[in-house]
Amino acid sequence: MQVPTIEWAGELPGRVRLIDQTLLPGELKVLDLQTPEEMWGAIRRLSVRGAPAIGIAAAFGLMLGIQDIATESTEEFASKVREVSDYLRTARPTAVNLFWALDRMEARLAREPGLSVAEQKNALWQESLAILEEDKDICRRIGEHGASLVGQGDGVLTHCNAGGLATSVRGTALSVFYAAHEQGTKFRVFADETRPLLQGARLTSWELVQAGIDCTLICDNMAGLVMREGKVQSVVVGADRIAANGDTANKIGTYSVAVLAKEHGVPFYVAAPTSTFDLQTADGTGIPIEERTADEVTAPLGVQSAAEGVEVYNPAFDVTPHPMIRGIITEFGVIEAPSTEAVRAFFSKHCPDRLSATS
Amino acid sequence: MQVPTIEWAGELPGRVRLIDQTLLPGELKVLDLQTPEEMWGAIRRLSVRGAPAIGIAAAFGLMLGIQDIATESTEEFASKVREVSDYLRTARPTAVNLFWALDRMEARLAREPGLSVAEQKNALWQESLAILEEDKDICRRIGEHGASLVGQGDGVLTHCNAGGLATSVRGTALSVFYAAHEQGTKFRVFADETRPLLQGARLTSWELVQAGIDCTLICDNMAGLVMREGKVQSVVVGADRIAANGDTANKIGTYSVAVLAKEHGVPFYVAAPTSTFDLQTADGTGIPIEERTADEVTAPLGVQSAAEGVEVYNPAFDVTPHPMIRGIITEFGVIEAPSTEAVRAFFSKHCPDRLSATS
Repeated sequence: MQVPTIEWAGELPGRVRLIDQTLLPGELKVLDLQTPEEMWGAIRRLSVRGAPAIGIAAAFGLMLGIQDIATESTEEFASKVREVSDYLRTARPTAVNLFWALDRMEARLAREPGLSVAEQKNALWQESLAILEEDKDICRRIGEHGASLVGQGDGVLTHCNAGGLATSVRGTALSVFYAAHEQGTKFRVFADETRPLLQGARLTSWELVQAGIDCTLICDNMAGLVMREGKVQSVVVGADRIAANGDTANKIGTYSVAVLAKEHGVPFYVAAPTSTFDLQTADGTGIPIEERTADEVTAPLGVQSAAEGVEVYNPAFDVTPHPMIRGIITEFGVIEAPSTEAVRAFFSKHCPDRLSATS
Repeated sequence: MQVPTIEWAGELPGRVRLIDQTLLPGELKVLDLQTPEEMWGAIRRLSVRGAPAIGIAAAFGLMLGIQDIATESTEEFASKVREVSDYLRTARPTAVNLFWALDRMEARLAREPGLSVAEQKNALWQESLAILEEDKDICRRIGEHGASLVGQGDGVLTHCNAGGLATSVRGTALSVFYAAHEQGTKFRVFADETRPLLQGARLTSWELVQAGIDCTLICDNMAGLVMREGKVQSVVVGADRIAANGDTANKIGTYSVAVLAKEHGVPFYVAAPTSTFDLQTADGTGIPIEERTADEVTAPLGVQSAAEGVEVYNPAFDVTPHPMIRGIITEFGVIEAPSTEAVRAFFSKHCPDRLSATS
């Protein structure tokens, strides 16, 4: 993509530029954010969305809130950091990268007690930039680990957008497709449009068409037929939060896709960085699920369609139980047949600090 | 409903009035049709839809095409009847009631060789009016046979619109709900919005809100979560064509709902008149599935949402295999565990003439 999904503009103090994804693909508008309140709104209304991108946005949002503080008291500064962090945590409840990134920022500050406020600001800024830079590398590695799962001539189904727009670049699920494409594999992506906000139609189809990858858009309710017709050899989706046993919260409808995949013997993969794991939550029942407003359902793209007075249920996510997941593709490799034991063994090998943080 | 879904206006020659369902619920507009071409267009663009209503529309459309013929030659008249009938058969391929109604009209003509053309016209008109009148009775009886399947406090999920707008009045699946409601049963309907044309949001929610029935609108991809949450005790849907073994073609997404119902142990029912059975087609593989234009998917409610250049797959129906169907609710009662044998036994008992017509 020519325009970055999200970036820090200038030095410190600076601003955040991010693509307003609510307007895509009709309009490519870049927002220029200067306050944590503006970032909170951008996250809330899904101008920036996707778990890894929300993490980056939160770290940058924290910087917007603390970069102009005029104090030389490290206590006062630390208090302000907590205040802005606590505020940003209320933007959306499900994607754990929001909390992971803010935890990481706060931990960085805690590691620098001897510095001046100006030095602490700079350290936090470096940390936020590192989160962005690391994400680029992580996405690339997820793609490399997943590419071999896409076979020559396969049909691969995805739901929502786990692409470059959901991360810094390349994405998670779509990074797998980009890597397979670069390796010369010929395959077809079936993109669920993903109601209510149509991230599959608006974002995934836009990304894949730009990348020259064969993409067929379907309504969410066509996934079953497409699988029954033998057109789908695997499913790859992203994740908003993965519990310690592998239960995965992702965009509403993912669970239905997983059930359909099970019925048709199609392997179902999740692609996500290890930062999307919430090892303090034992299983999916502990993951809070955001409910959003009724108008997203009753007025698609702003056009009223339903009867006045009808009740609406609009959960933004659902949880796919780990037994339905063939593997979770991370930056360190694939966790096959995820379970509490498999996840623990994987983290123990690749990022033991994450385990010690939860014990 | 105050305004009939479809009616014959005047004597012979007359016109057809029908609700333009593409504009609901925003606008209640009644179309006044005077030619078979206008009826063909109304069927094609789904101004009138739903298998039973399409059957009535076809019979009336035939009348529009033959009512003004100035001939006293019964051969010429019969030729014109076949011509208009053949033309109307091309409006849509899947709903079998279109063919059933036109077959019935042609059969009526064949039974009246001794009449004058004027008398034959009148006989055909009476036949078309009988199809409408019988449909009202059939819908009522379907509701009565199905009402006991809705339990006190149940959640019942339906897909698309199999209501009064899909028939003359009351509908098939929704007739079950209307009857249960009239019997005092308290229950909640979960209405799938039913992309791409949103018949669930636009039509079903409109009908149920008008009737005072508790209706919660969901996006199609939420059905799995709602079932997993234990909120759904049964599924009732309509049908566009039912093969001799009970395999049922219905609005795209019905098959996905059936798979989800199977996964969650939720009984899945089809409500349809016996006129929706196509006993000459052995199983679902023989049912032609209409594919519709890409813009229905890429531009919901007329608003472009997807990327330019993306491929689209837009099948209008899918087939639910009979082993996933607990029962088919007809005007003669419920065909439990439908199969070739069960369907044959049922027709043998209740409408043996339909069996002899196919042997």
